[in-house]
Amino acid sequence: MESVVDDHDLVASSRVEGTPVFDRRAVKIGSIRSLMISKTTGVVSHAVLSFGGIFGVGARACPLAWDQLRFDAGLGGYLLPYTREEIEAVPYMVVDPKDRPHEAPEPVYRHWDQFL
Amino acid sequence: MESVVDDHDLVASSRVEGTPVFDRRAVKIGSIRSLMISKTTGVVSHAVLSFGGIFGVGARACPLAWDQLRFDAGLGGYLLPYTREEIEAVPYMVVDPKDRPHEAPEPVYRHWDQFL
Repeated sequence: MESVVDDHDLVASSRVEGTPVFDRRAVKIGSIRSLMISKTTGVVSHAVLSFGGIFGVGARACPLAWDQLRFDAGLGGYLLPYTREEIEAVPYMVVDPKDRPHEAPEPVYRHWDQFL
Repeated sequence: MESVVDDHDLVASSRVEGTPVFDRRAVKIGSIRSLMISKTTGVVSHAVLSFGGIFGVGARACPLAWDQLRFDAGLGGYLLPYTREEIEAVPYMVVDPKDRPHEAPEPVYRHWDQFL
């Protein structure tokens, strides 16, 4: 039986999507909706955290930088260094059916810079 | 009504997954199963083209470099510069449930280099 290549640096996009996201007190905030990738370079621009809303209607989208996604094996999801209230208070985006934001993500990124 | 940010360089991973892939004669080969992304850098290592098999059982996985994915709006999928027979004849991978290959992708990449 062959062993899996020891290349655990790689993760499938389909496994990141739907992964729950927790705040720093381990309170579930939402989940990763998709990853936005540059067609030109193949680099992940940001992950889209979806939260709030009812059955997905009215959900907010919050862009997260790729290196903010720290997987916590105990929680089975990504653990953010923020509280849920901090996430809910920041500028957010509304995304179209193609997951493209209606607002430029840069102002949202700038907000996060103060925490980094 | 706000307009969508003109940032069409970005594509959502969830929209790439499941997109059909055609050979250079516009014959459908298979579809994109997932994108493999480096956890460290956030760069897409390769896309996994899944083809063959019956209802997904016994399907082969073929790694494609990101820049091999040229979207053809008329076909509604990615158009490869190879024939289906060329794709079927190359070394292929078997992937585990986490989409990680059981073989190192490098020999498969090397095969493709002759076409580039």
